[in-house]
Amino acid sequence: MSDVSDWWRTDIIDMEPGVIRFRGHAIEDLIGNVSFPQMIWLMTRGALPTEGEARLLEAALVAAVDHGPQAPSIATARMAVTCGLPLNNALANAVNMLGDVHGGAGEQAVELYTAIAEAGGPDHAGAEIDRWQAERTKFIPGFGHRFHKPVDPRAPRLLGLVDEAASEGICSGDFANIGRAIEAELAARKGKPVPMNIDGATAVIYAELGFPAPLARGLFCLSRSVGAVAHAWEQMQQGGRNKGPTPPQYRWTYTGPKEAGE
Amino acid sequence: MSDVSDWWRTDIIDMEPGVIRFRGHAIEDLIGNVSFPQMIWLMTRGALPTEGEARLLEAALVAAVDHGPQAPSIATARMAVTCGLPLNNALANAVNMLGDVHGGAGEQAVELYTAIAEAGGPDHAGAEIDRWQAERTKFIPGFGHRFHKPVDPRAPRLLGLVDEAASEGICSGDFANIGRAIEAELAARKGKPVPMNIDGATAVIYAELGFPAPLARGLFCLSRSVGAVAHAWEQMQQGGRNKGPTPPQYRWTYTGPKEAGE
Amino acid sequence: MSDVSDWWRTDIIDMEPGVIRFRGHAIEDLIGNVSFPQMIWLMTRGALPTEGEARLLEAALVAAVDHGPQAPSIATARMAVTCGLPLNNALANAVNMLGDVHGGAGEQAVELYTAIAEAGGPDHAGAEIDRWQAERTKFIPGFGHRFHKPVDPRAPRLLGLVDEAASEGICSGDFANIGRAIEAELAARKGKPVPMNIDGATAVIYAELGFPAPLARGLFCLSRSVGAVAHAWEQMQQGGRNKGPTPPQYRWTYTGPKEAGE
Amino acid sequence: MSDVSDWWRTDIIDMEPGVIRFRGHAIEDLIGNVSFPQMIWLMTRGALPTEGEARLLEAALVAAVDHGPQAPSIATARMAVTCGLPLNNALANAVNMLGDVHGGAGEQAVELYTAIAEAGGPDHAGAEIDRWQAERTKFIPGFGHRFHKPVDPRAPRLLGLVDEAASEGICSGDFANIGRAIEAELAARKGKPVPMNIDGATAVIYAELGFPAPLARGLFCLSRSVGAVAHAWEQMQQGGRNKGPTPPQYRWTYTGPKEAGE
Repeated sequence: MSDVSDWWRTDIIDMEPGVIRFRGHAIEDLIGNVSFPQMIWLMTRGALPTEGEARLLEAALVAAVDHGPQAPSIATARMAVTCGLPLNNALANAVNMLGDVHGGAGEQAVELYTAIAEAGGPDHAGAEIDRWQAERTKFIPGFGHRFHKPVDPRAPRLLGLVDEAASEGICSGDFANIGRAIEAELAARKGKPVPMNIDGATAVIYAELGFPAPLARGLFCLSRSVGAVAHAWEQMQQGGRNKGPTPPQYRWTYTGPKEAGE
Repeated sequence: MSDVSDWWRTDIIDMEPGVIRFRGHAIEDLIGNVSFPQMIWLMTRGALPTEGEARLLEAALVAAVDHGPQAPSIATARMAVTCGLPLNNALANAVNMLGDVHGGAGEQAVELYTAIAEAGGPDHAGAEIDRWQAERTKFIPGFGHRFHKPVDPRAPRLLGLVDEAASEGICSGDFANIGRAIEAELAARKGKPVPMNIDGATAVIYAELGFPAPLARGLFCLSRSVGAVAHAWEQMQQGGRNKGPTPPQYRWTYTGPKEAGE
Repeated sequence: MSDVSDWWRTDIIDMEPGVIRFRGHAIEDLIGNVSFPQMIWLMTRGALPTEGEARLLEAALVAAVDHGPQAPSIATARMAVTCGLPLNNALANAVNMLGDVHGGAGEQAVELYTAIAEAGGPDHAGAEIDRWQAERTKFIPGFGHRFHKPVDPRAPRLLGLVDEAASEGICSGDFANIGRAIEAELAARKGKPVPMNIDGATAVIYAELGFPAPLARGLFCLSRSVGAVAHAWEQMQQGGRNKGPTPPQYRWTYTGPKEAGE
Repeated sequence: MSDVSDWWRTDIIDMEPGVIRFRGHAIEDLIGNVSFPQMIWLMTRGALPTEGEARLLEAALVAAVDHGPQAPSIATARMAVTCGLPLNNALANAVNMLGDVHGGAGEQAVELYTAIAEAGGPDHAGAEIDRWQAERTKFIPGFGHRFHKPVDPRAPRLLGLVDEAASEGICSGDFANIGRAIEAELAARKGKPVPMNIDGATAVIYAELGFPAPLARGLFCLSRSVGAVAHAWEQMQQGGRNKGPTPPQYRWTYTGPKEAGE
């Protein structure tokens, strides 16, 4: 059976008294010399990215920080503070919300893009969309938006940066092509635009940069955490105690029996 | 009583279909043009920082990402993954841990530094330490380390960057002086060095940059989240199911009665 | 330094292969023989309660299970499910919400009652209320309700059960008297009734039964968890994806600058 | 689009000022008259159970409260308190842990039992085990235990109560038969006993009582919460600050490069 200190094994961090090394880099060499996105990359990937790769990652991290108090993640962070919770607990509630539906679209989009790439590229978008809908769900992750019509302003901006990076050889551009092929396919099927949204666009970047799908969700969590902290802190300054989702006069609809046994 | 859409009010984000503005900046102008630390600053403070301010914030964010599986935050993230949780839930557990003791030292250090500053500066360190211990707790937040002896390698590196920034007029250097005054005072009282640790050093930076104390904890959460995601992801790749804190053969000590009623 | 198996010590549970004992009771003797509230008592207090004590605890646990989707705990549980989270994560978000403001009133009320008891009993209610407001907050925990006017239907029912139990010698009734003294004092000060609410009434029970104040919050968490599971499960059956606090057409009020730099 | 108060709909709770009704029952009629397990049933199922049904549910709830600090749920609760978290946040971390691997076995066992029942009963256990392993995972949920050898003491006790209840017509006993058929099948396949564990046994009860599979996890969460609160509270009394999984001298094994670039 394993020894105690062998129970948790890691390639990430090495420590002795007075010494902290991440992936073999002494912490004092990283501080002040690498950017926060470079550090995120080093920690999750094992080596430092190029400047160009780090810039692209940075753009994705900047893009997804917040979508307002209507998003369950932000709503719960603000409510949490009115219940007396400090920022760490409010942020935990926000991040916990980023499950398959609210935070998982980026991860799923990377999976879909990867499936199309492995099938041979953009020409296989239609077939892989069919397979996705047969095996997973009718929702194509990363496309369409119930609020931002006609277009989510973050997506074209991010795609433009990918194109730029591809032209400089920072990434291949293959996943941008795949994303656009999905967009074209969905438009043809629906007879109207179903444009790429923030999840679809950040997934293009994460796939271009070689991040495995689950990390796409992890990175989204790091990004959205910024919005959650900002909103929780703003709410803390506003005060307010035990604020539910709506003002007290707007309650829920009761749909059960008036009397037991009815 | 308040109207529904008036129930949550925010200065942070404005949205219309196709439009997202943060603090008055269109998101497409921010993406690709501001760094992730600048975005963190904009979201939490209301306006963009200077380049020098952003660099100092970035150094603090880079410094605190991880302290290994021995830290409760990281331990819980790794355990969570072995219980079948995806990254968002693992990260939530990690961040939730960053309470007054594990994540609050930075916040408390900013409070102590601010108290000393308001009392008149470094010369008042001793008196404010006395007051802290009388009114709060014997633990002086941000100084001493049970593992990193003689010195936490992150602290002198961060302080060096503050000195540099102060010499360039990016910050005043007042809180670095206060931090050093506390260090000297504690050494004199204990008869041995009680050096500034990571929490004390990042608190110097946050105070120099004008962050209110609760945000020091919020920023620490954003930083430590990186380590939690990296460790959770590594554990996910290693596999392992339902891993408790130690191997099965090392259990706990039972200290209760052998039989009920004893 | 401590040995590994000595690192966590507990009086609660003893285990060998094939053997599980709680507080010295073999688990197979507890199953089918003690009620769930008796088990809660055994685990938290160290010995089994009398039948009468268990009944009183049970009444408090039954009383506080739910307060509808307007309560942040329940709201976040329902939202969580629409974000794709399973019940454990939805419940975690709900319970996390039960901080000082939303879940802490019972704990605080036990503290206030205890302070009055230690000061000498009901006659000291006024003085201890003054001290509470001077040292803690203007809010007197456990009294008044912004929704249930004139009276929270749970409080008189619970108090009636305490009176009954006191008449049977199950508890002293001292804390019921203290609760009523606070009620009378607040009515006199305000010139209108400020009746005891669910937190004030369950706190009377917890104090009568000898639960320390922090456990009053713990027990409230166990009780409210029932509502959170029920609501999360109902929402799971209803479906709904990524449901924020209000329908999409009701958004928040933006109160910041239209353009950056304004 | 939906109206605000129509956004959250529930059959569970109806409220007006001074009135709280659960499933049509006034709260003051429930308090003191129904047991906590009956209330749990009413909230999750829509109507009150019989006494016999409630007793069986109660046995399952009592059985699963705790499995010691080696269980990730309990470990994280104890660690949380040493990080300065109050009981609600410590409990949230514990419950969040109860994912597919640590808390999901009961839910999965109900699914497997139901599949066998729908296929025609115990004779179909082998075929459904094959299908489970082909479509889901090699792990058969609810059977075998890495620690409790030869047998988990909770399982035979719970099964005995089911047999008793079946003989009294409280439940059918069909799922106990299915559970035993799985046990026999696994023993035959492995050539050694793979006895039913706590998850398999509570799943028999939940299936006998008609609880849908996801609620099996929900009920386990309610049960294990008791252990988490008890352990967190015990730890709070013991003190201890920022306690990681093992004593400081037992660290992790670093398996990465000594120097970056190696």
